[in-house]
Amino acid sequence: MRPSHRNLDEMRPISIETGVTRHAEGSCIIRIGDTHVLCTATIEEKVPPFLKNTGLGWVTAEYGMLPRATNTRMRREAKVGQSGRTQEIQRLIGRALRAGVDRVALGERQITVDCDVLQADGGTRCAAITGGWVALRLAVNKLIKAGEVTTDPITDHIAAVSCGIYAGQPVLDMDYLEDSEAGVDGNFVMTGSLRLVEVQMSAEGATFSREEMSELMTLAEKGVKELVEAQEAAVG
Amino acid sequence: MRPSHRNLDEMRPISIETGVTRHAEGSCIIRIGDTHVLCTATIEEKVPPFLKNTGLGWVTAEYGMLPRATNTRMRREAKVGQSGRTQEIQRLIGRALRAGVDRVALGERQITVDCDVLQADGGTRCAAITGGWVALRLAVNKLIKAGEVTTDPITDHIAAVSCGIYAGQPVLDMDYLEDSEAGVDGNFVMTGSLRLVEVQMSAEGATFSREEMSELMTLAEKGVKELVEAQEAAVG
Amino acid sequence: MRPSHRNLDEMRPISIETGVTRHAEGSCIIRIGDTHVLCTATIEEKVPPFLKNTGLGWVTAEYGMLPRATNTRMRREAKVGQSGRTQEIQRLIGRALRAGVDRVALGERQITVDCDVLQADGGTRCAAITGGWVALRLAVNKLIKAGEVTTDPITDHIAAVSCGIYAGQPVLDMDYLEDSEAGVDGNFVMTGSLRLVEVQMSAEGATFSREEMSELMTLAEKGVKELVEAQEAAVG
Amino acid sequence: MRPSHRNLDEMRPISIETGVTRHAEGSCIIRIGDTHVLCTATIEEKVPPFLKNTGLGWVTAEYGMLPRATNTRMRREAKVGQSGRTQEIQRLIGRALRAGVDRVALGERQITVDCDVLQADGGTRCAAITGGWVALRLAVNKLIKAGEVTTDPITDHIAAVSCGIYAGQPVLDMDYLEDSEAGVDGNFVMTGSLRLVEVQMSAEGATFSREEMSELMTLAEKGVKELVEAQEAAVG
Amino acid sequence: MRPSHRNLDEMRPISIETGVTRHAEGSCIIRIGDTHVLCTATIEEKVPPFLKNTGLGWVTAEYGMLPRATNTRMRREAKVGQSGRTQEIQRLIGRALRAGVDRVALGERQITVDCDVLQADGGTRCAAITGGWVALRLAVNKLIKAGEVTTDPITDHIAAVSCGIYAGQPVLDMDYLEDSEAGVDGNFVMTGSLRLVEVQMSAEGATFSREEMSELMTLAEKGVKELVEAQEAAVG
Amino acid sequence: MRPSHRNLDEMRPISIETGVTRHAEGSCIIRIGDTHVLCTATIEEKVPPFLKNTGLGWVTAEYGMLPRATNTRMRREAKVGQSGRTQEIQRLIGRALRAGVDRVALGERQITVDCDVLQADGGTRCAAITGGWVALRLAVNKLIKAGEVTTDPITDHIAAVSCGIYAGQPVLDMDYLEDSEAGVDGNFVMTGSLRLVEVQMSAEGATFSREEMSELMTLAEKGVKELVEAQEAAVG
Repeated sequence: MRPSHRNLDEMRPISIETGVTRHAEGSCIIRIGDTHVLCTATIEEKVPPFLKNTGLGWVTAEYGMLPRATNTRMRREAKVGQSGRTQEIQRLIGRALRAGVDRVALGERQITVDCDVLQADGGTRCAAITGGWVALRLAVNKLIKAGEVTTDPITDHIAAVSCGIYAGQPVLDMDYLEDSEAGVDGNFVMTGSLRLVEVQMSAEGATFSREEMSELMTLAEKGVKELVEAQEAAVG
Repeated sequence: MRPSHRNLDEMRPISIETGVTRHAEGSCIIRIGDTHVLCTATIEEKVPPFLKNTGLGWVTAEYGMLPRATNTRMRREAKVGQSGRTQEIQRLIGRALRAGVDRVALGERQITVDCDVLQADGGTRCAAITGGWVALRLAVNKLIKAGEVTTDPITDHIAAVSCGIYAGQPVLDMDYLEDSEAGVDGNFVMTGSLRLVEVQMSAEGATFSREEMSELMTLAEKGVKELVEAQEAAVG
Repeated sequence: MRPSHRNLDEMRPISIETGVTRHAEGSCIIRIGDTHVLCTATIEEKVPPFLKNTGLGWVTAEYGMLPRATNTRMRREAKVGQSGRTQEIQRLIGRALRAGVDRVALGERQITVDCDVLQADGGTRCAAITGGWVALRLAVNKLIKAGEVTTDPITDHIAAVSCGIYAGQPVLDMDYLEDSEAGVDGNFVMTGSLRLVEVQMSAEGATFSREEMSELMTLAEKGVKELVEAQEAAVG
Repeated sequence: MRPSHRNLDEMRPISIETGVTRHAEGSCIIRIGDTHVLCTATIEEKVPPFLKNTGLGWVTAEYGMLPRATNTRMRREAKVGQSGRTQEIQRLIGRALRAGVDRVALGERQITVDCDVLQADGGTRCAAITGGWVALRLAVNKLIKAGEVTTDPITDHIAAVSCGIYAGQPVLDMDYLEDSEAGVDGNFVMTGSLRLVEVQMSAEGATFSREEMSELMTLAEKGVKELVEAQEAAVG
Repeated sequence: MRPSHRNLDEMRPISIETGVTRHAEGSCIIRIGDTHVLCTATIEEKVPPFLKNTGLGWVTAEYGMLPRATNTRMRREAKVGQSGRTQEIQRLIGRALRAGVDRVALGERQITVDCDVLQADGGTRCAAITGGWVALRLAVNKLIKAGEVTTDPITDHIAAVSCGIYAGQPVLDMDYLEDSEAGVDGNFVMTGSLRLVEVQMSAEGATFSREEMSELMTLAEKGVKELVEAQEAAVG
Repeated sequence: MRPSHRNLDEMRPISIETGVTRHAEGSCIIRIGDTHVLCTATIEEKVPPFLKNTGLGWVTAEYGMLPRATNTRMRREAKVGQSGRTQEIQRLIGRALRAGVDRVALGERQITVDCDVLQADGGTRCAAITGGWVALRLAVNKLIKAGEVTTDPITDHIAAVSCGIYAGQPVLDMDYLEDSEAGVDGNFVMTGSLRLVEVQMSAEGATFSREEMSELMTLAEKGVKELVEAQEAAVG
C-alpha cells in the first residue's frame, strides 16, 4: 500500500558514514533511504553571552538544504534569507541534542552542529537530529581523548523519526511521496532509553484521535530503536 | 504549590470581549489571566497565488507582541525583523485555524487573523488560537449574513491550551512564572469535539514518559472544554 | 459642513485611561474620537552611547500601527520593515516629548515611550504625543516616589493637535475623512503654556497664506488647551 | 555675531550652474555657500501603479549625501540603508516640488529629481528643493520643446530656506555651525509668489513663541525672493 | 619546496564522480586534492526577463560553501547574506561556462549550475568551474537524448586552474597553505583548445612582471590540459 | 573605426582637478573623456579589528554611482543595496591602491578612498583607481607635512586602464559604446614603473589567444604611462 512497498512499521535503509570531512571535529553523512544529510560538529572555546561565566556549555544547530536537494530547484537561502521553516527546524535540532547533554560536564564551550541536506526525500529534520547526534558524539570523543572533559557530557542517544497517517493508516518513517499526501504527520524525538524529548504532531486538513496518537507513538519507538542501533554501530 | 495557588488542573480566568475595533470584520480581546491578545479577522476577496482558480479559500495568521507586553521591554520587531519564534507561532496559528474550516465552502477568498499580544503572561500562542477562532467566527458570520457563502465554512471550534510538568507535576495552563521553570512544556490544539489538531511537547534539560504525555493530554482536554464554552458564550 | 458635523473649532471627544498594562512603568490608552493609541513608558538605567558619562538622560519614542487599525488591512511592519512615514513619526514624538523634560534632572537613564495605534481615524501622531506624555509623566512619578530623582524632570505638559484647511475652511482636529480630502494639513506641538515646540504644515496640491497659517495656529491653541486639561485629569 | 559675520537676514552666496551632466534631462549644481548639491531630473514615460490610467503625472525625489560630504566621514547609505532622516528629506522634496506642478498638464509620466549632496554645510534639504526645481524646470522645457506637453505643467517657482533662532536671535539661512547650536530651526518652502507650501519648525531643548514664528517667516520670505531670482537667472 | 612536496608544475590528484544526486539533471563531485565541490545542473524551461522571446538560452551559476568546509567554521551565508566574494565568484563561474555554450542552439531555456563546496583547500572557484562544466555537459546530454535540442549547444570544454607566485616561484594549482602565503595569485579559465576565457591575476603586497605573467600562463595551460582529460573521462 | 574616431591606441582626454571638496584630507575629480569620478580620501586614526596592535595601516575603498550618472537612470543603491558588481569593484580599488602603499610606514591608521561616479561613459573602475591614487597621495602628503609619518608610505603610482577587443581589434581605453559591443574586455592595474598589480580579462560570448593578450598588455602600458603623467601633473 505504501508507494515504496514498505510495511507500515518499516524504516527505510539506514546508513551512517563517519569522518567524511577533514576539518570538522566530528562528521557523518546519514542516509535514510534517499534522504542524505551531511552533519558536522564544531567545537569552539566560547559560549553565547548569556552563558558567560556560568560554567555551562551550549549545543546549537544550524540547518540548510542545497538548492537542488529537492525535485525542483529551491531558491538559495543565502540569497533570500532563512525561511521560517528553516529556523523552526534548526531550533528543534538544537533543543533535541541538548536533551542528551550534561552541560555542566561539557564545560564552558559551544558545539555547533551543522546539518546540510544534500538530497531530500522526506524526514530531513529527523535524519539531521539522528546524524547530528553522531557528529556530536564524535566531537565529544575528541574532547575526552584530549582530556579536556573528564566526565562524558553525553548522557544518552538522541534520535528522531517521522510518523503520520497515510491513506488512513499510521505509518513509520514517511518519504516525500507519503509526506505530501498525509493529512497528519509529525516527528518524535526520543532518547536511547525511549524517553520522549519532543513530540510534534500536526494535521493539515484533518484531525486525529488519542488512539491514533498512541499508535503513532508505538511506531516511533520501533523506529528510534533501529536508529539508535545504527548510531551505536557508527560510533563504535 | 503553583505560584498562582491554582489547582493542578485549573485554568486561569477566561474572558473574551468581542467587537473591539471598528474596522475589522471580526475582532475580540481574549484575556487568559494576565495574558491579553487582540485578535482581528480581515476578509479579502483574493487568495495567494497557489490557490488562484482552485475555488478554495485560505485562512492565514500573523502574530506580534507589543514591545512592552513583557516584563522587560523587547525590541520592536518592525525594527529588527520577525524572529524565528514569531514565524513559528504564526504558522502554528494559521494551521490550527484551517483545521476547523471547510475551504471549499469558504470559496476563493482569504481571511487573515492578526493576533497582537497587548500583555503577556505565558500561553500567548494558545490564547491567540482561541481568540483568533472567535474573530474568524465573527468574520464568517458577516459573510453568511451577506449571503456571500451559503454553507457555513466553520466546521468546528478550535482552541488551544498549554500544559507542562512543573515541579514534577503535570499542570494545566501555565503562566509565565511556571513556564520559565518547567522542564517540559507544550501546547495542545483541539477541536470542539476534542479531536487533536496539533500536539507540541518539548523538553529543555529534561525528558518525559508516555504516561506523563497521557496525563498532560487529559489535562488539555479539560482546558479545551472550558475554552470552547467561553468561545460559545462570546459568539452567542 | 464637516463629515462629523463638528464645529470648525471643535475637538473630537477626548478620553485618557491610565494604568492599562501591568508591566510598563507608565501607561495609558488615549482615545481622540475613533483614534485609539496605547502608550507605554519604559525606564531603563542606561543611555545611548553618545550620552555615556554625561549625566544627561534621554527620552525616545517608537511608533507602530496594528495591521488592522485601519479600514483596509496594512502589511505588518515586522514583515516589511518600518516605513519612512513611521520613522518620521517616531522621531517627531521623541523630539516633542524631550521639549518638556529637564534631562539633567532626569539623570543618566532612558525612558522609551511606545505608541501603538490600536484603531486609527486620523491624527494618530498627535494622539501619540499627547498620550505619550501621560505615560511619561506616570513613569517619572514612579522615579520621584522611589526617590531616584529629586527634582521633577518634567518641566511642562506637551500636547499636539492636527489642523488643516478642509473644503476651504481652517478646521481643528481632522479625522481621517477630512484628512484625506484636505489640501493643507499639519500638526502643532505645544507646551502647557502654549509655547511652540514643533510646527509642521504641509500642502499637497495646494498652497496657503500667512493669514491662514495664523488662523490654524489659533485653532491649535484652543485644541491644545483642551488636551492639557484631559492630561491633568488623567494624571491626577 | 554670526560665525560667518553675516547679517541676521543675510543669505550665503547663491550660485546655480546648469547642464552639468550629459545624461539627465535637466541638471544643475546649486551652491549655497559651502553647501553644494548636484540635482538631476529624469523623465520616464510611466507612472507609479496608483496613477495608471488616471492621466495624471508624478514628480518624486530622492536624496543622498556622499560619505565625505561632511566634516567627518559618514557611513555609505548603500551599505547601511537609508536612514529615517534621508527618507524624511526626500519625501519633503517630492511634496514640495509637486506643489508647483500641474499634474494634469504633465500627463501620465514621472519625473524623478535626484539630489546628491557633494559638500554639506547646513541647509542641504533647502538647497536640494531650490536646485531640484531648476532641474525639473529644465527637464520640462525639453518636453515642451519636443511638443510632448502643450500646457506648461510648471505653475510657479518652488524654493526653500532654513531659518532658526541662534544665540537668541532669529537668523536666515543657517550654516552648519549655526545649525548645530540653534535651539530652534526649521525650513520654509514657498512658491515664487510667496505662498506657503511647507513649514517645518522644530525645537530641541527649547521652545518658541508665535511672535518668533512670525519673525522667522518674514526672514524666510526675504530669502526665498533671492533664491527665486537666482532660479530665474539660471533657467534664463 | 612546496608544502605538499609537489613539483612547481604539478596538479593535485583530480577525481570527478558523476551522477551523485538523484534529482538534478546533471551532477558531479569534483575533488582536486582536498578541495571537494558538489556541482549540480538544473534545467528550467524559462529564461530571465531580458531574454524573453529572443530565442536565446542562458547559463548561470550559484556558489556556496558549507560552514565547516573550512578549517575554522565560517558563518552561514543564509544567516548573514552572501558576501561580495561569493557574488564575485558566482558571476565568474556563470561567465566562464557561458563561453563554452552556443546560446542559440540551447534555445530559450536556462541552466543553473550550483556549486557547493563540501570541503575547501584552495582553488574552490576553479574546481567549481571545472566540475560545473561536467554537470552542465550531463544536463545538456539529457536535452539532446530527449530531442529537445538538435545541435549540441556545448561548443568546447571549459576548465580553470589557479596559479601564483609562491616563495618567489611560479607554481601551478595552489592549495590553501600556498594561497595564503602567495603575494601574487590568480585564475585562468580556458577552453579545451586552450583559448583564454578569463584571466584574473591579483597581487596583494607585491607586484609582478610581464615575464612572470607569461610563465604563469604556460603553467595554466598544462593544468587545464589535465583537467580537460579528467572531464573527458568523466562524461565518457 | 572607433565610434569616437580615436586611434586604436589613443586614450580619451585626461583631466584631474584636485582640492574639490573642503572636508576631505585629499580629493579630486578625474575626467577620462565623459567618465567623471569624484575621489576623496579620509584618514582615520583607527584600523579594522584584524589589524589592531600590529603597527600596520590599511587602505580601503568604496565605490558608488549616482543614479543618473548613466544614460538611463539606475536604482539608487542606498535603496536596493550594493550590487555584486559594486562590491567587486570596490574590493578591486582597495587591493590596487594597497599595492602602492608601505603599510608599515603608514602606521596604524586607515585611509578610506571614496570613488563616486558623477557621470559614466565606460572605464569607471579604472578612473576610480587612477583618481583614487591622487586623493590618497594628497591625504598622505598632509600626514607627512604634519609629521605624523616620517617615511613616505606611498611607494609608487598606481593607475589603471581598460582594454578590449572591439570589432576584432585590440583597443585602448574603451568608452561605453565600445564596451557594450566588445566580446573581450578587461582592466590592467599597474605601478608607475609598469609592474603589474592586477589583470582582469574577461570574455563574454568569445574567447581570445595569448597573442591578443600580449597586444592588450602593450596597449595598457601605453595608457598607464599617460595616466601616471597626469597624476604627476595633478599632485605637483
